[in-house]
Amino acid sequence: MKPQKLRVIGVVSKAVPSEVGALVRSLSSWLVSRKLRVVFDTEAARHAGKRRGMPREKIAGACDLLVVVGGDGTILSVARHACRTRTPILGVNFGSLGFLTEVPREGMFQALENVLEGRYEVDTRMMLTARAYRGGRLLSSHSVLNDVVITKSALARIIDLAVSIDGEYVTTYKSDGLIVATPTGSTAYSLSAGGPIIFPSMEAIVLSPICPHTLTNRPLVIPRTAAVEVSLLVADEDVFMTLDGQVGRPLRTGDRVRIFRSRDEVRMIRPSSRNYFELLRRKLKWGER
Amino acid sequence: MKPQKLRVIGVVSKAVPSEVGALVRSLSSWLVSRKLRVVFDTEAARHAGKRRGMPREKIAGACDLLVVVGGDGTILSVARHACRTRTPILGVNFGSLGFLTEVPREGMFQALENVLEGRYEVDTRMMLTARAYRGGRLLSSHSVLNDVVITKSALARIIDLAVSIDGEYVTTYKSDGLIVATPTGSTAYSLSAGGPIIFPSMEAIVLSPICPHTLTNRPLVIPRTAAVEVSLLVADEDVFMTLDGQVGRPLRTGDRVRIFRSRDEVRMIRPSSRNYFELLRRKLKWGER
Amino acid sequence: MKPQKLRVIGVVSKAVPSEVGALVRSLSSWLVSRKLRVVFDTEAARHAGKRRGMPREKIAGACDLLVVVGGDGTILSVARHACRTRTPILGVNFGSLGFLTEVPREGMFQALENVLEGRYEVDTRMMLTARAYRGGRLLSSHSVLNDVVITKSALARIIDLAVSIDGEYVTTYKSDGLIVATPTGSTAYSLSAGGPIIFPSMEAIVLSPICPHTLTNRPLVIPRTAAVEVSLLVADEDVFMTLDGQVGRPLRTGDRVRIFRSRDEVRMIRPSSRNYFELLRRKLKWGER
Amino acid sequence: MKPQKLRVIGVVSKAVPSEVGALVRSLSSWLVSRKLRVVFDTEAARHAGKRRGMPREKIAGACDLLVVVGGDGTILSVARHACRTRTPILGVNFGSLGFLTEVPREGMFQALENVLEGRYEVDTRMMLTARAYRGGRLLSSHSVLNDVVITKSALARIIDLAVSIDGEYVTTYKSDGLIVATPTGSTAYSLSAGGPIIFPSMEAIVLSPICPHTLTNRPLVIPRTAAVEVSLLVADEDVFMTLDGQVGRPLRTGDRVRIFRSRDEVRMIRPSSRNYFELLRRKLKWGER
Repeated sequence: MKPQKLRVIGVVSKAVPSEVGALVRSLSSWLVSRKLRVVFDTEAARHAGKRRGMPREKIAGACDLLVVVGGDGTILSVARHACRTRTPILGVNFGSLGFLTEVPREGMFQALENVLEGRYEVDTRMMLTARAYRGGRLLSSHSVLNDVVITKSALARIIDLAVSIDGEYVTTYKSDGLIVATPTGSTAYSLSAGGPIIFPSMEAIVLSPICPHTLTNRPLVIPRTAAVEVSLLVADEDVFMTLDGQVGRPLRTGDRVRIFRSRDEVRMIRPSSRNYFELLRRKLKWGER
Repeated sequence: MKPQKLRVIGVVSKAVPSEVGALVRSLSSWLVSRKLRVVFDTEAARHAGKRRGMPREKIAGACDLLVVVGGDGTILSVARHACRTRTPILGVNFGSLGFLTEVPREGMFQALENVLEGRYEVDTRMMLTARAYRGGRLLSSHSVLNDVVITKSALARIIDLAVSIDGEYVTTYKSDGLIVATPTGSTAYSLSAGGPIIFPSMEAIVLSPICPHTLTNRPLVIPRTAAVEVSLLVADEDVFMTLDGQVGRPLRTGDRVRIFRSRDEVRMIRPSSRNYFELLRRKLKWGER
Repeated sequence: MKPQKLRVIGVVSKAVPSEVGALVRSLSSWLVSRKLRVVFDTEAARHAGKRRGMPREKIAGACDLLVVVGGDGTILSVARHACRTRTPILGVNFGSLGFLTEVPREGMFQALENVLEGRYEVDTRMMLTARAYRGGRLLSSHSVLNDVVITKSALARIIDLAVSIDGEYVTTYKSDGLIVATPTGSTAYSLSAGGPIIFPSMEAIVLSPICPHTLTNRPLVIPRTAAVEVSLLVADEDVFMTLDGQVGRPLRTGDRVRIFRSRDEVRMIRPSSRNYFELLRRKLKWGER
Repeated sequence: MKPQKLRVIGVVSKAVPSEVGALVRSLSSWLVSRKLRVVFDTEAARHAGKRRGMPREKIAGACDLLVVVGGDGTILSVARHACRTRTPILGVNFGSLGFLTEVPREGMFQALENVLEGRYEVDTRMMLTARAYRGGRLLSSHSVLNDVVITKSALARIIDLAVSIDGEYVTTYKSDGLIVATPTGSTAYSLSAGGPIIFPSMEAIVLSPICPHTLTNRPLVIPRTAAVEVSLLVADEDVFMTLDGQVGRPLRTGDRVRIFRSRDEVRMIRPSSRNYFELLRRKLKWGER
């Protein structure tokens, strides 16, 4: 596909450490020197010495490309909003090696040069929408790039989550909680809970129970078209739904969460030189013990 | 889809125990009483007192429906051939609860009645083709419904298997071996090796290393379109490729196995009253500890 | 060892369901008919129609044998106190099959008969003591039969727990939390988190991280003589220490918990007809898939 | 304990690569320059240009200290014999980081200096003895430092192994095989099969089934005093018992293997500067993901 002409570049960054500030300032100068318009989110604006930036939920709508300087968490926080406008995201890694922030900071300008000249690929990543209901009432609706997690508080031992898929009862997980993840999210929390690695361009949903009482409750991979319903049967203590590890909503006994493939998608720019397996080998230290 | 008229029914069975014989004989009478033509495989013919039966690799081509009396192994042995003619298979369970033989023996006649009247669903199951090469020469080519397994012999400690997907290097597994499985095969050997459960109607491939030396070598789920290449790098001892746990081929250092989605598919008849999650709950004792 | 003469029998029970009441009343009559003195805890007293019972922390000191009617949780709640007086405990199971309540309710009188006549074995179970410190100050000290668990709240993603054993730094677990369990506790929460089954008469301590970020952070079994120190390095949100899944204590960044073998032990009466492996086979459905 | 005066030093090495030869020669000169007598095993003798060396099963009896240059496999091959004479072993690592060869090659002379002056600690490691019986006849008896492994050949799918501990039936594992390991062996094959890490100075035995069909067949840790009996119930194909991954013995249906703590022990010299947890962190890359 012939890429559209990029005119306005959005810059999003995390707040600390101070070196992020220097990077944002040099990025800003570089973009301006190329006659591009630059808009900043609140944090990046502060780093760049601008009066004020745009909130993360709005910046995607105001630009043709988002450059995100930070870690996977920074990407997740903006991806939830950028998906609606399908604005492509270039993640510049600042921190420990991430699965989403593919460009190392020292390669940022070269990667941008490539993107501006159209030498890049776009990975389209599916998202999930989670809708929580209490009785017949919709409590909240969110889209996530990684995962929807329903977990018990620290004090409770176990919660009971009844799960149905496309209206068919699956089982009632007695566990610390349940992770419903996208392929992108399969290398995040789900992996720690024993889930498989799912190639990110696949369209699938994985259900990974957290410390299930029933040892045979193994992770379950289902088609992208499946609609998952999770009902919170019994909970002595507080239970929370967490979205991409960032937004939390309290749940009560009887609440239901419906999770299905979102109509939105995230478009991640992949520098031509990198591939997913190289990332896996580096992150998971494959080839070493 | 309107089912075609079924005129010739193939009967395939396992050899023992003797109760299988009684079942095959009453099945034969029942089919004849409904004016259907019956053909038998070698084992079923012996049970039914017929002079000779057809070999399993031929029977599917001679009938409109295969009734298989046995366990999952019996189904696998005939499915490898029935896939080419797309002959639907009705599995009648005789033995421990299986994932493929969905009809209990006491429900056989009712299930057949339903099938003959068109009251059934067909689950199409993807297969994998495995082609082994030595140098440029094709050693063998097989299609499997469950899995292709490359393993060391009992004496060797570890083998090195270099894996590429669509030409991109993934990693070199140091392990007891590697299972490349379909969704149908995900509840067989792959599950014992730590793999996820994959909904059987999905089209995906799962790579599950067996006792990998590198603990982060977790199972990997990839799209149905992926072509996997496994190269046997080093092997002091005998290494075997096993197909659906039934056919074995020796491999040598330097051999390569290419595994990809088969053009053939298996068509399994599902009695309307059963669903996959009920099967999982029963087989894996979910809902109990 | 020649068992001491049993004169005073303590009866402890859970509150519900109402059938527990009937069992407690017939148990009471049976004991009285054998000229034994009976003391009740608060719940059992209510069931037996007595004015008032003794609190669980005191009843062990007032009797020669404790009969506990309930589930594993009921045993845990009284074992924490009975360990000091070394009063033997006979667990009568009421609910789902437990690891600690070995006698089924229909076998209660026969088991008691055996115990009164000296036909029984006593399993001595090691306990752990957990002492929490803030700066130099002791916050709390508890003994547990199963486990000490330090976990994050539902909202936090990960906590950092630095662990030392006998003063030597082990690692910093980035995880949902850490379980430090006795062999008795190895079949409880630790098993769900991926820990091994440890034969209950062994003296050992197992550390099982909960959903560790580092996949190679596997459960670690250490000698009974080891002193474990867990320091809570970073925690954005509430972190709790939970003792035998029953008592919770909030922790803050910088708090340290020292865990070591308790001087106290629990003495569990084992009916001569049962053994541990039979229990494992039944609870974990071994011999079935 | 006051170390005995060391007069005769045994040198054992692996055959390749050629750099091992240079190291053995300089080690030999260094020892001679300190007026120590040096004896060589066959491989080390070849490297040192000596006419002939001693076989590995004899060298331990001829010296006061064994210096082993190689990997964990080299240590295992000599430890099986050195245990009888309790000759202490100093492992010099040559190859990938090992769990047993604690001294890096560049630290060899410093470590030897320390040892000769008595500045070292000795880790005593328990061993297992495995005795195979056919009917009433003893087939073989071996001692191992790591593990006894009973496994199927590449072609067979599953073998049935009935296990008893101290005469009590545990379960029948349907699996690829069973690993019975010492704490030293817990970080070798058993870890790849899902077993826990057991602190090496502990005295315990761990049973880790390999890819068990029954998912709840989790690794089992039992006391050092336990006697394990494994009976091979059914095996269509060849089954092998492998000792420390080095010596193999074929087994047949009906054969029994009795495994119990050996009377012999291996004495490993630990340089004062190293500890086990540092080794774990390096080998398993703890502290990284």
